[in-house]
Amino acid sequence: MNSQEIHSLRAPAFSSELAPRRSTALDRWALSQIQHAVRQAPLRFVLWDGFERAPSGPAPIATILIKNRPALFAWLWNPDLNFGEAYMSGAVDVRGDLVEVLDAVYRALAKSPPHQWRLSSSNTVSAAKANVHHHYDLGNDFYRLWLDREMLYTCAYFPSPESTLEAAQIAKMDRVCRKLQLKPGERVIEAGCGWGALALFMAREYGVRVRAFNISTEQISFARQRAAEEGLAGLVDFVDEDYRNVQGECDVFVSVGMLEHVGLPDYPTFGRVIDRTLGANGRGLLHFIGRNKPAPLNAWIQKRIFPGGYPPTLREVFEHVMEPQGLSVLDVENLRLHYAMTLKHWLHRFEEAGERVQQMFDEIFVRAWRLYLAGSEASFRAGSMQLFQIVFARGSTNSIPWTRTS
Amino acid sequence: MNSQEIHSLRAPAFSSELAPRRSTALDRWALSQIQHAVRQAPLRFVLWDGFERAPSGPAPIATILIKNRPALFAWLWNPDLNFGEAYMSGAVDVRGDLVEVLDAVYRALAKSPPHQWRLSSSNTVSAAKANVHHHYDLGNDFYRLWLDREMLYTCAYFPSPESTLEAAQIAKMDRVCRKLQLKPGERVIEAGCGWGALALFMAREYGVRVRAFNISTEQISFARQRAAEEGLAGLVDFVDEDYRNVQGECDVFVSVGMLEHVGLPDYPTFGRVIDRTLGANGRGLLHFIGRNKPAPLNAWIQKRIFPGGYPPTLREVFEHVMEPQGLSVLDVENLRLHYAMTLKHWLHRFEEAGERVQQMFDEIFVRAWRLYLAGSEASFRAGSMQLFQIVFARGSTNSIPWTRTS
Repeated sequence: MNSQEIHSLRAPAFSSELAPRRSTALDRWALSQIQHAVRQAPLRFVLWDGFERAPSGPAPIATILIKNRPALFAWLWNPDLNFGEAYMSGAVDVRGDLVEVLDAVYRALAKSPPHQWRLSSSNTVSAAKANVHHHYDLGNDFYRLWLDREMLYTCAYFPSPESTLEAAQIAKMDRVCRKLQLKPGERVIEAGCGWGALALFMAREYGVRVRAFNISTEQISFARQRAAEEGLAGLVDFVDEDYRNVQGECDVFVSVGMLEHVGLPDYPTFGRVIDRTLGANGRGLLHFIGRNKPAPLNAWIQKRIFPGGYPPTLREVFEHVMEPQGLSVLDVENLRLHYAMTLKHWLHRFEEAGERVQQMFDEIFVRAWRLYLAGSEASFRAGSMQLFQIVFARGSTNSIPWTRTS
Repeated sequence: MNSQEIHSLRAPAFSSELAPRRSTALDRWALSQIQHAVRQAPLRFVLWDGFERAPSGPAPIATILIKNRPALFAWLWNPDLNFGEAYMSGAVDVRGDLVEVLDAVYRALAKSPPHQWRLSSSNTVSAAKANVHHHYDLGNDFYRLWLDREMLYTCAYFPSPESTLEAAQIAKMDRVCRKLQLKPGERVIEAGCGWGALALFMAREYGVRVRAFNISTEQISFARQRAAEEGLAGLVDFVDEDYRNVQGECDVFVSVGMLEHVGLPDYPTFGRVIDRTLGANGRGLLHFIGRNKPAPLNAWIQKRIFPGGYPPTLREVFEHVMEPQGLSVLDVENLRLHYAMTLKHWLHRFEEAGERVQQMFDEIFVRAWRLYLAGSEASFRAGSMQLFQIVFARGSTNSIPWTRTS
């Protein structure tokens, strides 16, 4: 599958044409149902013929235009999936700040009855490879347009809200290393290494030896080339292999931004991989998108952006990864607002590069990614997503930090 | 129940007399079973007539003398309970460093098959009162002999391992306040306030208003007197009431060293108390003894020291307290080695005051408390117990710290 094929997966589900006919009583009823579900969000809804429903309370912060009947009824039927499908296709438009709108919607929905619990499906090794390919092999050129110089596609750490994205990504990597108290010569396994920035940073700045695993072919090629250029190929080994096939022993196990792709059914396996590889005084760090309460990933994000993704609660990780292996949790930090800030930077850069992205793909791709980035920023701001960093160690070792170093 | 009655609860279970007869083949078999269960601990076991079993590996670090047959078979039958009963009675003696011995035993047992899972029983309000009375109303004079000046009977925070206990308890209180980012005038509810040191500290140093709850009558009287003497009675209200009866709203909910007395079945209630009292931008901190894997409290500690006690795993707290209320975990810190250090100080001071304690109670009481303090130090050192501090907030508030302040 190349970028062209991925691109063709993104066929629009709805026409973006304005319907020529007047809205009926049934259309207006459908609109009232949609508006009612998020009535606590101050939004004006408008149909193709100008019929509108405004909020009863404060002045609306934005207008949502629904351009035709298929988009209207699909939204009513399955809002989680079809708002995204329709927005992406251009059948729904948002006049106002997209992040603000989605933040208000997430907050309104948080006050509604909880979602039905749904088990995410297991990601086999080959499905995992396809899922990762779907997202990460869109082309390094695409990601280079809006990521930081180091190509880190995970939450940054902003020492202050005014820090630049470049500085915040360096600060994040250094914070991870300090939490792990890396010492020269130690053996590190990294599960899910992206374009390799953290592995190279750990080797360069802390003198450790890293075996870094990833199943995205494009990312691994990029990382290997960088290691060679920087003369770090002797310290960092990039392995084109699934995390389940990690072998060997390490002093430190680190995984940044992979657990949310693992899927709940494979957590026990993930725990056993850690247990199998971690030395007697071993320690580790997991960095992942999570939740306060269990809930499936938004259906549209699941379909269009992250097939197989599932953001877990801390309880789920402790129950299925840490407790069965008797691992000791030393430290947890929630960086939710830092991910909202990271996404704000990404969205801004993405918009700046909008024309270039449209040339590489098309308008529908641009709308889909805008919605994904804006929706993610909003969900971290509204508290419907969290970002957890967990530091852990073998339960029996006393070779652990006396106090926090960061 | 007064101290005299509590004292009489501590009747010895075993005679401390050396048996006059020679050990039989059955006695020696029983000893071999006991030794086998902890064979990874380098200990020499000796019976009343001098028969011994030495470890096969490294030189023994201590000798355990079992003085008679009832103590021997009771130990074999129920080691969790009866090692303590026999040690306390003087029917078992340890020649060597008690903490080292117990540390080695805990580490040896951690390599054995896990304990059977056992649900702890529910603590009704009246049972809770009796349980607390059992332990905390031994008399302020007793605790004053070996606690720090502020009378804090919870894990301290040692900025360095060389810090004094007095400094470490102040540092702990300040750390709690900084994690909570207390601001003058805020309303704090403290569930389980001991002798009131933290409540008074928060009011004095951070200018907050505190309602502090406790069901130990002796502790509450002491705390109220201190508040009056320090002119803080206007800011701190000590309430002689169970945590389940906490009313009113607060900005901050804090509980240090109480959750381990609550018992698993009452965690949902505890969560609802937090939810009922916490304001819209509310935050809180829980500090408690915990585990990496679920296991009941040692049977002897449960019987003699902490009736109704249960140290939970983080997963259990998140599952039953945080998730049902949608509370957001912001920060977790594991202070296991700090509790080992705190207990080392307590044990040292307790031994220094040994003669005075013996006068107040008797030799059996001294042995029971020595075992409890030494066993606790060993269990934190060996990693069979943990000390967790959790900072949390309402899931929807963005009034949370941007970065850690401690």
